[in-house]
Amino acid sequence: MSERSGNARLPSSVPDPARLPEVIDEPRMPAGFACGGVACGIKLSGRPDLAAFVVSGRNPAAAAATFTANRMAAAPVHLSREHLAATGSDGGASGYARGVLVTSGCANAATGSAGDADQAEVARLAASAFGCEPAHVLVASTGLIGTRLPLDRVSAGLDALVPDALSERDDGLAEAAEAIQTTDSRLKSASATIQLASPDGSSHAVTVSGVVKGVGMIHPQMATMIAVVLTDAAAAPATLSGLLREAVGATFDQLTVDGDTSTNDTVFLVASGAAGTTEVEPGTPAAARLGAALTAVCRSLARQQAADGEGATSLITCRVVGGADLADARAVARTVVASSLVKTAVHGRDPNWGRVAAAAGAARRRDGEPVSLGPETLRISLCGIDVYGAEPLDFDAAAVSRAMEAPEVVIELDLGRGSAAAEAWGCDLSEEYVRENSEYST
Amino acid sequence: MSERSGNARLPSSVPDPARLPEVIDEPRMPAGFACGGVACGIKLSGRPDLAAFVVSGRNPAAAAATFTANRMAAAPVHLSREHLAATGSDGGASGYARGVLVTSGCANAATGSAGDADQAEVARLAASAFGCEPAHVLVASTGLIGTRLPLDRVSAGLDALVPDALSERDDGLAEAAEAIQTTDSRLKSASATIQLASPDGSSHAVTVSGVVKGVGMIHPQMATMIAVVLTDAAAAPATLSGLLREAVGATFDQLTVDGDTSTNDTVFLVASGAAGTTEVEPGTPAAARLGAALTAVCRSLARQQAADGEGATSLITCRVVGGADLADARAVARTVVASSLVKTAVHGRDPNWGRVAAAAGAARRRDGEPVSLGPETLRISLCGIDVYGAEPLDFDAAAVSRAMEAPEVVIELDLGRGSAAAEAWGCDLSEEYVRENSEYST
Repeated sequence: MSERSGNARLPSSVPDPARLPEVIDEPRMPAGFACGGVACGIKLSGRPDLAAFVVSGRNPAAAAATFTANRMAAAPVHLSREHLAATGSDGGASGYARGVLVTSGCANAATGSAGDADQAEVARLAASAFGCEPAHVLVASTGLIGTRLPLDRVSAGLDALVPDALSERDDGLAEAAEAIQTTDSRLKSASATIQLASPDGSSHAVTVSGVVKGVGMIHPQMATMIAVVLTDAAAAPATLSGLLREAVGATFDQLTVDGDTSTNDTVFLVASGAAGTTEVEPGTPAAARLGAALTAVCRSLARQQAADGEGATSLITCRVVGGADLADARAVARTVVASSLVKTAVHGRDPNWGRVAAAAGAARRRDGEPVSLGPETLRISLCGIDVYGAEPLDFDAAAVSRAMEAPEVVIELDLGRGSAAAEAWGCDLSEEYVRENSEYST
Repeated sequence: MSERSGNARLPSSVPDPARLPEVIDEPRMPAGFACGGVACGIKLSGRPDLAAFVVSGRNPAAAAATFTANRMAAAPVHLSREHLAATGSDGGASGYARGVLVTSGCANAATGSAGDADQAEVARLAASAFGCEPAHVLVASTGLIGTRLPLDRVSAGLDALVPDALSERDDGLAEAAEAIQTTDSRLKSASATIQLASPDGSSHAVTVSGVVKGVGMIHPQMATMIAVVLTDAAAAPATLSGLLREAVGATFDQLTVDGDTSTNDTVFLVASGAAGTTEVEPGTPAAARLGAALTAVCRSLARQQAADGEGATSLITCRVVGGADLADARAVARTVVASSLVKTAVHGRDPNWGRVAAAAGAARRRDGEPVSLGPETLRISLCGIDVYGAEPLDFDAAAVSRAMEAPEVVIELDLGRGSAAAEAWGCDLSEEYVRENSEYST
């Protein structure tokens, strides 16, 4: 979505990992939030399946979201967009929210008008628990498509998620992170701390912290993923929305596990303002710092998702430089990590650069146009070893194969056509992915 | 490629399988050709790897081609396009050819200027064997990317492929069909016979017969596939080109095995005119009949490819009706058969229609635009059993699962938005696909 307007603001859209704030893979709770998760019985397994992320104060906080582009978008996607449209001024991309409620185990997608009514009832129940209007509740769900939400169980589960019962400590956020998961094998969270100015002129620490679920049905332009990012910085909804779109375009939109785009993809960003810093205005150095922290957190979450891809044994990172423009560089990076043949080659630790070259050549931008590249200017390296440079290069295949045993396999391409750069993340394709997904609902 | 102009000629572009000429899965040789294949030593396995399809008469015949859209297109693709451009009048889409030479085992892709020189030498050697100008030789190759063609072995192999040594019988075409294969597990051929008028007013039988290779690195907009279609009908190069584009748009462009688009995809159509029928003019009933026969042959070949997809245990056919336009219908059909989650669900005989709905909703047309569809008008059936119709339907999941054991699993969608229809073909994703492609070059 940020792709088409990307060229005009190229420098700020390319995340240079070296210049992003440091991130820790832990859920460090920003001030002004209380979170938690419980097992209410949506999942037959009895694992946690209901998560709440609530603003501690009485007032709703500024919030922004990006949603799946899938035409079969699920009931919670429609309802959250409606709520943001009712409380904000940009048609559903940002507004005000008191809390986010996530249900896992049931996607509430393709459930017809009955599913829409279920989701509205869930928001009413959550509003009652959080002590706010239903329009100040944002919802997301993940799980099987075509099944109905068990309203009685959600209602009972919400008793344990009233704000007074929620934890403002890190373990509340960790608990919520666990409750949004489905096939994830490990908890995914990331936090960054930056300094922003306060009204009194002093500098204060601001935390940006996110959690995410989703390791299958994952593809650029949002994946089957739900991410909730919280910050104690202060910013207006439209400011958050601009920063979120830019961060998502560089991170979650460049993530693929299996090429499937879900009906339920959602990223929420909520800013409590509880750090006491000055409201961040668009286009200022403070906005750049907050945006960089947000990008760093989203990038870390996306990498954790790819590394935990269903059946994956390694994270695949593709870095592209020399693109004619940002859309080209992003398209090539996405296409390489999405290629079944690249994914199986990495699984077999096979330095088959020809598959990388073929995938790059087949890349299409989101506007459907082919990418500017060709064999005469292309350069490819695998795990830091040059393998192609306008023609096949001599290299030690056994050494590359050994290097590919690492938990992260880095594929680098120089298109030789300009100065745009991009990254994308995916994982290898294994027999285990096939087994896991052949047996999912049976 | 036929996609963007497709809407204007919707009726003729939608192949109604019931109205296409009957096809037999055998290589019935059209008059005026001699074909054969040998093992010249490109493949280390010693299997056949050099195939010739030669026009029997002294004069070159009208020919047309479609090529991969991959930006890393291989040397034979560039050379064939040059030769058609030199002998025809539409810049490389059609012209005149005496014969087609296919090498298998080496793609001659990403081999730099040395690879281009190799390919030109192969064309000169073939011209000498066929007794024609190099510009009247069309070439295609398939196999590993980044390796060089062994010119001495190709040269020696061509001694057995001079026209006098080639067979004008069906076994010559079968022999050539075998020699173009790589990972295919069985020979793929299709033939149709139609009646066309002769100059003396009588009606004569005309044969359209094709062979194809390619069961991996297969995706719409041409796959890693090489198809050679021969006919003894008479038609000008530009007429052949128009008919071929239309047939490929409805068939090979709707085929996917693994989402990867190759550097070497090529479809050749050569018309000997040896049946003695009147030259087919564009826009006439004769052109419609020849086009239908061509579409029927290409459709049969595409279905044989999908059924033989690497690791596949079943052919997946997706039929879409009710599309707002042809581009929408084709996009949905392609996206459903390309979905990893649909493919693994079919592998597990899991009637998981939610994955079909999610894939349909994520479909993008070739111009990058989303498709017009939504949960309220969508209908889905699996193996003839309705499973979704604006809301989940009650159905016997065990019965659908049993029906999915068939060698062909048919998924039907009605988008409820118009009258456009399309088909696409793919196959299930199995552990065997992963094994086969993790161990390809090691």
